[in-house]
Formats: sequence, C-alpha cells, structure tokens
Amino acid sequence: MVYFDNAATTKPDEECIKRAEKYLYSDFYNPSALYAEGYNINLELREARKNILSAVADAEKFELVFTSCGTEADNTAIFGGGRRGNVVTTAGEHSAVFAAVNELKQRGLEVRFANLNPDGSVNLEHLLSLVDGKTSLVSVIHVNNETGAVNDIAAIASKVKATNAYALFHSDGVQAFGKIPFKLTGNIDMYSISAHKIGGIKGCGALIKRKNLVIKPHIFGGGQEKGLRSGTENVFGIKIFEFAAAKRRAAIEENYEKVSKIKAAFLGGLDGGLFTVISGENSSPYIACVAAEGVRGETVLHEADDRGLIIGTGSACSSNEKKRFSRTILACGIGESLADGVLRISFSPENSVEEAQTAAKLLNEIVGNRKRIMA
Amino acid sequence: MVYFDNAATTKPDEECIKRAEKYLYSDFYNPSALYAEGYNINLELREARKNILSAVADAEKFELVFTSCGTEADNTAIFGGGRRGNVVTTAGEHSAVFAAVNELKQRGLEVRFANLNPDGSVNLEHLLSLVDGKTSLVSVIHVNNETGAVNDIAAIASKVKATNAYALFHSDGVQAFGKIPFKLTGNIDMYSISAHKIGGIKGCGALIKRKNLVIKPHIFGGGQEKGLRSGTENVFGIKIFEFAAAKRRAAIEENYEKVSKIKAAFLGGLDGGLFTVISGENSSPYIACVAAEGVRGETVLHEADDRGLIIGTGSACSSNEKKRFSRTILACGIGESLADGVLRISFSPENSVEEAQTAAKLLNEIVGNRKRIMA
Repeated sequence: MVYFDNAATTKPDEECIKRAEKYLYSDFYNPSALYAEGYNINLELREARKNILSAVADAEKFELVFTSCGTEADNTAIFGGGRRGNVVTTAGEHSAVFAAVNELKQRGLEVRFANLNPDGSVNLEHLLSLVDGKTSLVSVIHVNNETGAVNDIAAIASKVKATNAYALFHSDGVQAFGKIPFKLTGNIDMYSISAHKIGGIKGCGALIKRKNLVIKPHIFGGGQEKGLRSGTENVFGIKIFEFAAAKRRAAIEENYEKVSKIKAAFLGGLDGGLFTVISGENSSPYIACVAAEGVRGETVLHEADDRGLIIGTGSACSSNEKKRFSRTILACGIGESLADGVLRISFSPENSVEEAQTAAKLLNEIVGNRKRIMA
Repeated sequence: MVYFDNAATTKPDEECIKRAEKYLYSDFYNPSALYAEGYNINLELREARKNILSAVADAEKFELVFTSCGTEADNTAIFGGGRRGNVVTTAGEHSAVFAAVNELKQRGLEVRFANLNPDGSVNLEHLLSLVDGKTSLVSVIHVNNETGAVNDIAAIASKVKATNAYALFHSDGVQAFGKIPFKLTGNIDMYSISAHKIGGIKGCGALIKRKNLVIKPHIFGGGQEKGLRSGTENVFGIKIFEFAAAKRRAAIEENYEKVSKIKAAFLGGLDGGLFTVISGENSSPYIACVAAEGVRGETVLHEADDRGLIIGTGSACSSNEKKRFSRTILACGIGESLADGVLRISFSPENSVEEAQTAAKLLNEIVGNRKRIMA
C-alpha cells in the first residue's frame, strides 16, 4: 500500500509514541494537581510548549496555547481576534477558518474574501484593497491545504499592518509547520498548528500568539493554559507532538529536499495529456494537486484505493460538507469539469521516489482507461 | 503509593489502551477520508458513539457528540443552550460551567445561581424559584466534583420543565458517568461526560443531547460530528473511551458496592475529633470530602504526598484560579477556617479497603501532629 494522503493525516511516528507512553501508563497525573506528581506533569507541558514554539518562533516574543486540534486553534484565533468591524480572509481557507468567519457574519460582522490566483495563492492586491480602518482581523492560510500554494505570510502581514496597524494578522499554518522552513515575524499575531499532520496524533494542536496580545478564550473553565484554554490537557498527545515537532525540525531542510524529489518524480511520471497540474511552481513540495478533465476524482480515488494507492480528492475535512466541487478549486478559476477531476496527492518524508513513480503510473493507467471507455 | 485523587483523573486502563493501539499504529487514517480505510475508521467512531451512548441513554432518543474534554462539552451546552433571557445554574458547578455562564453574563444574559445545601447538593426550592418564563437554560451538576453530593437531576429536570417547558436542561455528568447507575430521562436535554475520569485518557469527552434538539456548534469547520463539532476526531482517545465505558458499565453495580466499602473504611478510620465530614450520607461513594479545622489542606496534601498518599484539596481544575477557598465549599455554608482545611479523597474500583485504612491512619497522624504543634 502506498499512502499519499499525508495532508489529511500522517501515520503517527512510532518512536515518538514509545517515548510518550509513560504518560499513559505511569505519569498519568492531572497537570493541575498540587502534589509533586501533578506538578511534574505541568513542567513536562511547559517543556513541550517551549520546544514546539521554538521550532517556529522566538520564545521571547511569542507563546503557545495547546488546543485539541488545528480547527480549534483557528476558531480561537477567529473568534478571539474578529471582534468588530470587518474581517478579511481569502477564498482559499481551510473550513476551520471559512466556517468560523461565516459564523462571525451571522453575528453581524462583515466578512470579506480575497480572490485567489490560479495556483490557489491569495491575490495580494485584492486582499490589501479589502483591508481598511475598520478591519479587526486578517486571516491568510500559510500553505493552502488543497493546492499546496505557499502564501508569503510575513510579507502579507507587514503590508496589512502598513494599511491598518491595529488589524490582527492570523495564519493557519497547519500544512506548513514542520514542513516549510519558516520563522514567525513580529507582524504575525497568531498562527495555528496541528500535531497529526507531522507524525503526532489526532486530538492535539496549538495556537501560537504574540506574547502581549490579549484575546478572549474560546473554551472557558478551570483556567488551564493561562486561562486561554480550559480543560485537562491531553498530555500524551502533547508530548508526542513535542517529540514529532523536534524530529521534523531537526530534519526540515533534508525532508524538504527529499519530498521535493518525490513530488518531482510523481509529477514527472504523470501523463501530461491526461492531467492538468494545478499546484504552482512554488507550491509546497508536500502537496501535489492535479486534475483529469471529465474524470470524476472520487471514482479515481476508489479505484486507486482498490489497487493499493491511497490519495485524496481535496480536503478530507470538507468531505462532510458533501459538496461536489471544492470552493477553493473553483476560486482558483478552474471550471467545474476540471474541478470534478481534482486529486490531492500529499507526501511525507517516509515516502519514497519509487512510490511516487508507481503512483503516477497507476493514475495514468486508471485515468487513461476511463478516458478510453468514455471516448 | 496510594492514589486517591481519582476525581482529578484516573490511571488509564491498560487493557483498553492495548485494545486501541491499532488506531495509533495501523488504523491511523482520517475518518473523513473517502477511501475504504478512512471510512472504516468512521464506522469505528459510529460504533464508539453508539456504545458509549447506550451506557446512559436510549439511543432512539439521544445522540452523542464527541468533544475534546468535559469542559468543551459543558461549554458547547452552555453556549449552545443559553441563547437569551436568563440562565439558571447552581453555586456548586464545575468551573467549566461556572466560567461559561459568567461569559454569558458578559454577553448580556442574566445568570442566576441557586444556593447549595450544606452537603453541596442544590437547594431545589431556591433553584425552582429562579426559573421563569424567560429562562432559556438550566444547568445542574449531577455529582458535585468537590463534595460528591448527588443531585437527582431526573426529578429536578421534570420540575424545571413543569415551570417552563421551553427551558433547556443540561447536566455536567463528568463525575457520575460510569460510576452512578443512571439513565437519562426525556426531560434532560444535554449531558456532559469525560473519558479520563473512568479509565480513558485525557483529551476526550462527549456531549450527549436529545436527538431532535437543535443547538449551535461551539467549534466550526469541516462539519465532523454532523456539524456539531468540527476538527479531526481523536480516534485513539475515543476508542479507549468506548472500551473503558463498556468496562465500567458491565461492573457499575459491583464497583459501586466496592467503592462504597472503601469510602466507609476511609471515613470510619478518620478521627472524628480531628475531621469534619462534608460529604453527605447520600453522596457518591467515589468522593469523600472532609476538612480539618484550621489546618491548611494544601500543607496536608504535600505531607501526605511525601509519605506516599496522593489526595486532592478540591477540584484540580480550580488550582489554576489560585483562590484560597473553594467557592463551592463556601457556598455549602462552611466558614473560611474549615474551608481552608478541605481535603478531597476520591476513589476508583482499582483501590482497596486496605489503602483506605492506611490513608485514614496517615491523615489522622498528619493532622494530629499539626494540631499538637499549633496548640
């Protein structure tokens, strides 16, 4: 079986799980408990917070709040930051931002969506034209989860601040963290990350925020995470997250190169007569978005699955929305007939060039056969 | 080491973890993915939902939404149910409800707190006097997390509905689920539960709700959990929750008896001249709340810890609030000098009568010595 849906979730890293197992079997105490055993777990969480944060930000200027997933981190940023006036975001956001800003609209805020370029990156000029003195929050995804387009969020954030210094800037970094070499700059106020996209387990994410930024919590209660996220912490998941982030951090450049070769081998192996490549030249090497005109992606996905290749058709999270076409893909200016044939192939450093070659060959065959039958 | 802080968190059940390990190592797929491997995980979640739900409710009338913890379940109920008019709750709620209703107050709703009886149960007459035609939500904790007082929520809910049939009734069942034999009745609209209080792991809870009840989600995104809780599901935690709930369900009566004997042995062994028992006669056998006048609970906790006994002083979650006195204990009408000496000893079926005897003896000694020194 070749697993090429790593943007949906990665196989948890066994070494990291083994290292964290003691938090299940012996160090299971409540980190808020006052006795030494509980306090020690609290210290372990601090260590995890510091280590994950330092992979992407200066610990003097930023802090990290653990959440239960990337979606919750995005919601915390959107509801915490979008308090009044208007909110500016892009037509290419993950559902966690898209659905949250739509809820803000229900609550009376104005929400403005910036257009996308054909590769799924945001049209910067359009985005900046939407920001004004009443903008309370701007949210731009770092790496688009469907096309892999990389938005230069450091540059975008500084241009947003030049227009309105009081607007908060958030970015969903779920598909970037641990993959794209990058450090947060001072103009970025909030950044969402998730464990299970980099070898951690489901049920664990974080919101990184500027230290002196005051936002309201989204979950209220016992005051864990300095009051910003109440609820007993998922210690096991958090420690795996820490270990997986450290592993990715140590090998980020090497993995980037390796995955770039895998993606190149995959795209190089695809039959250009059958497939249109949607991902741009500068997209993340971890994601390849391609489409076969007139051949429904979902049927290709199922046949590939039957024949030993696991791929996606877009965001796994969106499958619950039961909409035939991806709103991000349509926003790239792609017509319905091509949008219907979109496939997302997403890689991990655990994959190999050989797997990429096999996958390309198989997809050529599946789509080629279907086209012949339809012709 | 004797572990008597099971109301803060339980040691995860090793057998249940082992059974769920495949969801870490092989069946790690995203449950929203369209291919067979993902769909199979989705079916596993359905199975878990059904099995956990059936332990406490009729699956024809209720449904279960997985959340990241009991706190999030409470927040979903409070923010989802308390939409207008006034919200009635008790002075003895867990912080997850208390802080959430205080946030509702910030948003312009009126919040009314019912007084407690000396054992920590709600004063029913006072509660009912607070409910009127403008009440949108009533929330009453099932088993008080500090004193162990059991509120007869079925009876309370039916009386609330007799006063205002449109008021929603929610109960935080975190300290009751899997411990107190109980089935949800039709007048209860929402019920919160948590995995890590019954042998599951941290990072997993659920809100049970009436099937035809429409509430807004608290976390917006890809539409998981029928749109009621977006975010990739914590499959490993959920499956452990399922297995732990099944184990508790199968032995609930037997465990109840066993833990009752442990509690009786503990209270029977305590020196009545040194300790006041706050938990009432009809309190949960899983929690014993006692206090030594004038001897600070926190110092007793630390000395006990040094000598091999782990206990609490109240809600672990409240330790982050850094308040000297528990608001629940004060609301029981207990003075500050006694409130300062509160200890919460909480049991699990894994504990033994011998441990209870040892603990009582040790606490007699610690408090006796301190009183002698102070005298």
